[in-house]
Amino acid sequence: MTRSAASAATLERGAVMRAAVLHGVGDVRIEERPVPGAGPGEVVVRVSSVGVCGSDTHYYDHGRIGRFVVDSPLVLGHEAAGEVASLGPGVTSLAVGQRVSVEPGVPDLTCPQCLAGRYNLCPGMRFFATPPVDGALAEYVVVHAAFAHPVPDVLSDDAAALLEPLSVGLWACRKGGVTAGSRVLVTGAGPIGLVSVQAALASGATEVVVSDVNPERLALARDLGATDVVDARTADVAELPRPPEVLLECSGHPAATTAAIRALDRAGRAVLVGMGGDELSLPLSVVQERELQVTGTFRYAGTWPTSIALVAAGRVDLDRLVTGTYGLDGAADALTAGRDDPRSVKVVVHPQR
Amino acid sequence: MTRSAASAATLERGAVMRAAVLHGVGDVRIEERPVPGAGPGEVVVRVSSVGVCGSDTHYYDHGRIGRFVVDSPLVLGHEAAGEVASLGPGVTSLAVGQRVSVEPGVPDLTCPQCLAGRYNLCPGMRFFATPPVDGALAEYVVVHAAFAHPVPDVLSDDAAALLEPLSVGLWACRKGGVTAGSRVLVTGAGPIGLVSVQAALASGATEVVVSDVNPERLALARDLGATDVVDARTADVAELPRPPEVLLECSGHPAATTAAIRALDRAGRAVLVGMGGDELSLPLSVVQERELQVTGTFRYAGTWPTSIALVAAGRVDLDRLVTGTYGLDGAADALTAGRDDPRSVKVVVHPQR
Amino acid sequence: MTRSAASAATLERGAVMRAAVLHGVGDVRIEERPVPGAGPGEVVVRVSSVGVCGSDTHYYDHGRIGRFVVDSPLVLGHEAAGEVASLGPGVTSLAVGQRVSVEPGVPDLTCPQCLAGRYNLCPGMRFFATPPVDGALAEYVVVHAAFAHPVPDVLSDDAAALLEPLSVGLWACRKGGVTAGSRVLVTGAGPIGLVSVQAALASGATEVVVSDVNPERLALARDLGATDVVDARTADVAELPRPPEVLLECSGHPAATTAAIRALDRAGRAVLVGMGGDELSLPLSVVQERELQVTGTFRYAGTWPTSIALVAAGRVDLDRLVTGTYGLDGAADALTAGRDDPRSVKVVVHPQR
Amino acid sequence: MTRSAASAATLERGAVMRAAVLHGVGDVRIEERPVPGAGPGEVVVRVSSVGVCGSDTHYYDHGRIGRFVVDSPLVLGHEAAGEVASLGPGVTSLAVGQRVSVEPGVPDLTCPQCLAGRYNLCPGMRFFATPPVDGALAEYVVVHAAFAHPVPDVLSDDAAALLEPLSVGLWACRKGGVTAGSRVLVTGAGPIGLVSVQAALASGATEVVVSDVNPERLALARDLGATDVVDARTADVAELPRPPEVLLECSGHPAATTAAIRALDRAGRAVLVGMGGDELSLPLSVVQERELQVTGTFRYAGTWPTSIALVAAGRVDLDRLVTGTYGLDGAADALTAGRDDPRSVKVVVHPQR
Repeated sequence: MTRSAASAATLERGAVMRAAVLHGVGDVRIEERPVPGAGPGEVVVRVSSVGVCGSDTHYYDHGRIGRFVVDSPLVLGHEAAGEVASLGPGVTSLAVGQRVSVEPGVPDLTCPQCLAGRYNLCPGMRFFATPPVDGALAEYVVVHAAFAHPVPDVLSDDAAALLEPLSVGLWACRKGGVTAGSRVLVTGAGPIGLVSVQAALASGATEVVVSDVNPERLALARDLGATDVVDARTADVAELPRPPEVLLECSGHPAATTAAIRALDRAGRAVLVGMGGDELSLPLSVVQERELQVTGTFRYAGTWPTSIALVAAGRVDLDRLVTGTYGLDGAADALTAGRDDPRSVKVVVHPQR
Repeated sequence: MTRSAASAATLERGAVMRAAVLHGVGDVRIEERPVPGAGPGEVVVRVSSVGVCGSDTHYYDHGRIGRFVVDSPLVLGHEAAGEVASLGPGVTSLAVGQRVSVEPGVPDLTCPQCLAGRYNLCPGMRFFATPPVDGALAEYVVVHAAFAHPVPDVLSDDAAALLEPLSVGLWACRKGGVTAGSRVLVTGAGPIGLVSVQAALASGATEVVVSDVNPERLALARDLGATDVVDARTADVAELPRPPEVLLECSGHPAATTAAIRALDRAGRAVLVGMGGDELSLPLSVVQERELQVTGTFRYAGTWPTSIALVAAGRVDLDRLVTGTYGLDGAADALTAGRDDPRSVKVVVHPQR
Repeated sequence: MTRSAASAATLERGAVMRAAVLHGVGDVRIEERPVPGAGPGEVVVRVSSVGVCGSDTHYYDHGRIGRFVVDSPLVLGHEAAGEVASLGPGVTSLAVGQRVSVEPGVPDLTCPQCLAGRYNLCPGMRFFATPPVDGALAEYVVVHAAFAHPVPDVLSDDAAALLEPLSVGLWACRKGGVTAGSRVLVTGAGPIGLVSVQAALASGATEVVVSDVNPERLALARDLGATDVVDARTADVAELPRPPEVLLECSGHPAATTAAIRALDRAGRAVLVGMGGDELSLPLSVVQERELQVTGTFRYAGTWPTSIALVAAGRVDLDRLVTGTYGLDGAADALTAGRDDPRSVKVVVHPQR
Repeated sequence: MTRSAASAATLERGAVMRAAVLHGVGDVRIEERPVPGAGPGEVVVRVSSVGVCGSDTHYYDHGRIGRFVVDSPLVLGHEAAGEVASLGPGVTSLAVGQRVSVEPGVPDLTCPQCLAGRYNLCPGMRFFATPPVDGALAEYVVVHAAFAHPVPDVLSDDAAALLEPLSVGLWACRKGGVTAGSRVLVTGAGPIGLVSVQAALASGATEVVVSDVNPERLALARDLGATDVVDARTADVAELPRPPEVLLECSGHPAATTAAIRALDRAGRAVLVGMGGDELSLPLSVVQERELQVTGTFRYAGTWPTSIALVAAGRVDLDRLVTGTYGLDGAADALTAGRDDPRSVKVVVHPQR
């Protein structure tokens, strides 16, 4: 039986699927739900791999992130890949059985931000696993066909899912103007820091220094190509032999952020990726005297084609980040693995298992 | 007797001139000094007008600005115009008698920042009236020929001097990407705020809102073309009918700065011009969710030709800003006028008087 | 009876309207057609004014433009304004009776070009009056709500229609990087040249030189703010006192284009707006030694909000371009007016007349 | 005896050196000349390696390139490396004995192009081996200290010399906006084409297709990382599976250039590096409909630090390009090697041999 035949079989009218549903703090249940149907321009994707993000864990632990509150059952997960299981009306760009990576936010496409190419800033964005929009920790998800990106066979299912965090790192590099020969400082060697390291190297950076307090993560950063590391418990980014041109801030740690901005070279760019509260102490006189540019990032726009190309060309290794694999039944364990094990980097859930 | 003949006469060997010299806090003395000589590539300028800047007043009042300390006698003044009085060896681009506006900072020209076109960030910059470099409150100054910019007759001497603050406003507009149809908020209606308003309008902005606590300055802002004003004592920039795309922060007031950044539209740019201490509270989550870009500015680079063109074309009116004129003997009064009179905007000193 | 009541009355089920339909070369007929209905996300616009473009005249005279052939009856006209007559399902951003300017090309919104903000390059673009898509020389048209831009009362119906050609000029200015103090050369003083002059001035250009062979159009260019004109029959753009930084080529004349590119300053930008055949002789060594940037333009993207703001602020005067007004019955005369009368600049059709 | 001691010994007052001097077409003579002295801000470099460029060969064969005519004896060679032999007055950034790569053009530093960071467009540029400025085929040369770039030991002398052509390729990539994931077409697999391939890969391009008529050069292009090659004798760039986004034109062949521009994707950029006569047939309608950007390049600005970093990081291999090495006595042979041997790519001269 071929893949697509299997998929088609699964999607008979009235088919049901399993999903991991968050009902409250620490309360994830595996439930049966109807397989969703694809509306015009949409496709149903049979999910093969879902990466667990810190935001998923935060919802699991706290039931909210800032103003987003889980007040009705919610499916978590927004780093997803799979294969096309069925096509909604009008979809011609994809075929059933095709392997795709899911870009998990679909904007309204017509607001001024969308028309300007900044669809990540669309006020009408519907984003996976952000209340009240369900995410991908399920056997099937629906997504707009233009946001289901075909991936070549050279990408594993996990790599296809992890194109999402890679997109965050790539977007940070774009915002920071990382280019051939750039000197980059990445603060924080968590999953986002590590994909940012790889994205910076793939963008041509020749110096990529990583700071963190976790020596195992710093070792992994080195394995992934970081040219130097700073153990922030004992050393200081102000003492780097040459000041970095670009800061990719992925720690969310306020003091580390301020110190790293102070370490930048004249005309440097600081990209604030890590979430760390509502206020940051900005070293104003430094920002002025060196004409630093400080930019926040919010998700990404137009990153999938590049992310796919970088992984397919071997410039970025996403499989190397996976430190744990779970079935859907293990969703709760997956959600807490990163929190509980300092050696954990990125865990993935395989919902078909 | 022609202008240049007069100038030449003045510059006989061993000629002396008068200068206003700061000896300590509140202690400015008119002294005789030798007229400086022009080295290779330099020219001597017979100064016709010097604008007084808040930084001059700050040195007068406090004897220092941050790490720059007046520990030996210093001539203040860095907004200057005049006519070329003599040419140093090798200067062919200018002629004696030519009216020029002085760009008061001369960089080393060969460091990486200079070679990249960011000469304002040159570590070797020598800037007028910044210890230990003397400024322009004197009858003559020396400057590199490339930084003595010819001005057409349509510009008054005062306007030629005030091209310096206009350059600050123009540079802010460039950093903020002000362009045709931009919606701009200018916080602070002091001299820099007012030139920023004009620079924004001249750059095509169609909405330029100005906030300040001084109603007279707000009225002047309106006269100069501001499309709306906000009296910050009673109203709030958060309540503007449409969020601005660009903030030109010219108040140096920390709370006003933070509030104005919060008022920006998605993908907005905040340009921090006003000096307001070492630390600023940055609204991190707002900067991230809207992908705001926050940039400090430090002086300017390559602004004189544009500034001259804008004033010559009638797009910017600098004479309108002048609220007081003094001779060199009145330098101390000129330095304190802005501080003591709320209706004062910009005072100028005419050293030949 | 209010406007919207009238509109609503007109749009009873089965209502008919008049349209000017091109059946072949030189064969335009006024016909009755059903008033089109608005699909989801669309609105019906009761057309108040339609500008006639050279491309309309070209279709009328030749039955084709390049690979676009009129092989079935076609309604011409793509510069249109009117008021909203009815709303399709789901439209909440507009109200019946609201005055709007029609952006006449609706892209597919989801292709890579659209998602990158370059929707003008969308391969799936449906553009008014381009076979087989009907245009606006009719009493009613349908357009996507996001492409029906509300205009303030200060804009006349004709100005609202002529935002389309203004958008062409504004787009050229953006591509050419026209900014405060730019020195611009506009070749060709037809309607597109004249809106480009105004767009350049509104973008801050302080020198805008216009070349043409028609002295009446050069006089109009001066009236509209051009700082200098070149009568191309007797003078040469190579002899300008200062080389322009930006060329906005609006003549479509190959020799004029090549000569104008040769006249550019180092690091100059040439924007090729005028259509002039398949091949252009590019002065390669000049392009290399001066590092010129040569760019073609195709329509525009994201220009309406700016165009509206510029006209509303009085920075651009579109009414000044109108040299003739026709009712729908006069469509054929309108289509040939520009061709037959050298003093004609822009004619408009008022379909409700 | 240390290196610097040796150098110092060589540079006694009145020291002489050998140089290869072009006296006319095909007439290169090895002559003794005084070792040049370093003026203020300059250094004398003891030349270790000089790459031979096609322009050197063109001067040798034709006595001129366009308007540049060899009408008095001229030393050729502008791709040079060596070690600092003596310092002129005021030089503190370098030390005797330090290995440097020579950037062979020194601009006036103060013209508007220089101050804007575009020093390659400086009208006062003095460039090695361009009449009447002597080049580097000599035992010693003098250069401004800011243009003698220190190189780390990991770079060979030849690689240090070949940073010059690498800079040409890197500059082309910058002009073309080559970035992570770019799809690039390089036309022409000569030395400039091959460094452009490497520069594009180092800038993150994931598709780099090379076209040429020489199968050996195409094979070398593949070895250097090109992802695909097109033998232009039998295949056509129009048939590439996906249209390239960036064209780096390094062939100087007019028909190939036009065809390659036609092959570009919408919003593509064509960078014209190869010199190929005064006129190029530009496919105007294609340039317009796809909004292509066509840019000429002229040398480079600010490329050495990046070029050094890329070679030091192993991202670019310049030694791989060297197919022949000559002593100074073999200068004539070196100048004709590339012309006479189809397998020759880049030959270098070691003047100390």
